[in-house]
Amino acid sequence: MKLLLTISFDGTDFKGYQVQRNGRTVQAELNRACEELFGKPCDAVGCSRTDSGVHAKMFCVAITEKGRPDLCSSLSAEKAPDALNAHLPDDISVNRAKWVDDGFHPRYAVVSKEYVYRIYNGRYRSPFLDRYSCHCPYGLDADRMNEAASFFEGTHDFRAFMAAGSKIKDTRRHVFSASVSKEGDMILFSVRADGFLYNMVRIMAGTLVDAGTGRIRPEDVKDIIRSGERRRAGKTMPPQGLFLADVEYPKE
Amino acid sequence: MKLLLTISFDGTDFKGYQVQRNGRTVQAELNRACEELFGKPCDAVGCSRTDSGVHAKMFCVAITEKGRPDLCSSLSAEKAPDALNAHLPDDISVNRAKWVDDGFHPRYAVVSKEYVYRIYNGRYRSPFLDRYSCHCPYGLDADRMNEAASFFEGTHDFRAFMAAGSKIKDTRRHVFSASVSKEGDMILFSVRADGFLYNMVRIMAGTLVDAGTGRIRPEDVKDIIRSGERRRAGKTMPPQGLFLADVEYPKE
Repeated sequence: MKLLLTISFDGTDFKGYQVQRNGRTVQAELNRACEELFGKPCDAVGCSRTDSGVHAKMFCVAITEKGRPDLCSSLSAEKAPDALNAHLPDDISVNRAKWVDDGFHPRYAVVSKEYVYRIYNGRYRSPFLDRYSCHCPYGLDADRMNEAASFFEGTHDFRAFMAAGSKIKDTRRHVFSASVSKEGDMILFSVRADGFLYNMVRIMAGTLVDAGTGRIRPEDVKDIIRSGERRRAGKTMPPQGLFLADVEYPKE
Repeated sequence: MKLLLTISFDGTDFKGYQVQRNGRTVQAELNRACEELFGKPCDAVGCSRTDSGVHAKMFCVAITEKGRPDLCSSLSAEKAPDALNAHLPDDISVNRAKWVDDGFHPRYAVVSKEYVYRIYNGRYRSPFLDRYSCHCPYGLDADRMNEAASFFEGTHDFRAFMAAGSKIKDTRRHVFSASVSKEGDMILFSVRADGFLYNMVRIMAGTLVDAGTGRIRPEDVKDIIRSGERRRAGKTMPPQGLFLADVEYPKE
């Protein structure tokens, strides 16, 4: 069996999820914590690569012994969160755990993921929101942004919303929902899809900002998608506004 | 004239408001930023002393030239926030400014202040809330806590809710309102008074936790106040849950 963990992390002080030669990563912290708890080298396989500085309210990880398809342990799933949290730093927490079959792969099994991009539209920057949003102090029309977001829905080739240099061939993705809402001075862009290209949500968010300022019309999003040209989409927004918010697996 | 600033700050990395020989303080950062902007040594007098690690959503500061009762500058109040924010670190922001009479004192002029203490009552710690709340993973009855809080209202001698060793003689304060509410897993204690004793809100919050767990009855708060004995009140809760939320001055 593998141990499937649901975790959350504050990405501010991480160089993303995946282990790297230089820089602190979420995976390295999980590998270490699991090794300390289970007394053997472990491998924490994540549901997604996430970039440096990006946060996760929900992220899924399957733990195996390193070099094996399973983990041999008598630890109950109920006790796993507290046991692991005791070995983890404050910016990662385990919120749920369950034992799953060896065949389960936390990335390939994903049915859909939801990301939220947070834009703080207050006049002055906020010490409490700076870590968890992008500050845009200029006028943004959230209704226009919401209209623009609706054109992301459906199955499209999202090549125009992929970081230049990415080598992925199949750039078609299905977006289940995409919308923009406003809570006080916070503008929230939520998007659920069966998969995402590199930097896709951050480029979508930059394009919605263009719609919000009036630089483009909401319906221009259709043409930008159709063009397949990265330069026609908006800029890549900074990582601190981005949260992986939900990961959906097949119903049991 | 003095320049009255409304600021907010994340207290995590500060040793409180007031300048100290060792440790980073909000006042030292403001003095430096004002000196850079106005080209002369300045003195940033705050509305309150706040402890190490305590946050402020709203805090008021009057700026004068050092050693003088006023500040000579042609800067307009409208431009002051952006001008100062450019010289301040990310964990302090100026949100409003206005020119006030030399006689105005930001501490003595206070009519009332409101503090909020945040208790995160989720089962597991949260990477996003750890900096801004105290995590209490055990059962807490917010209705009982709210009932207990109601006994703080009115004019009382709050000696039992003052840190031991404090030298203040007049320990009577008037509490305008005190209540506990719940938003999801977050329990919020809000209290507005004409003044507060040293550690008063954090000891009140610890006493409310005792009511929330059932260790004391809500009405026991009356007796604890009457006793004047620090040892009968609850423990001093940690600083990261405490926010100065509002500062009220006389209506103009």
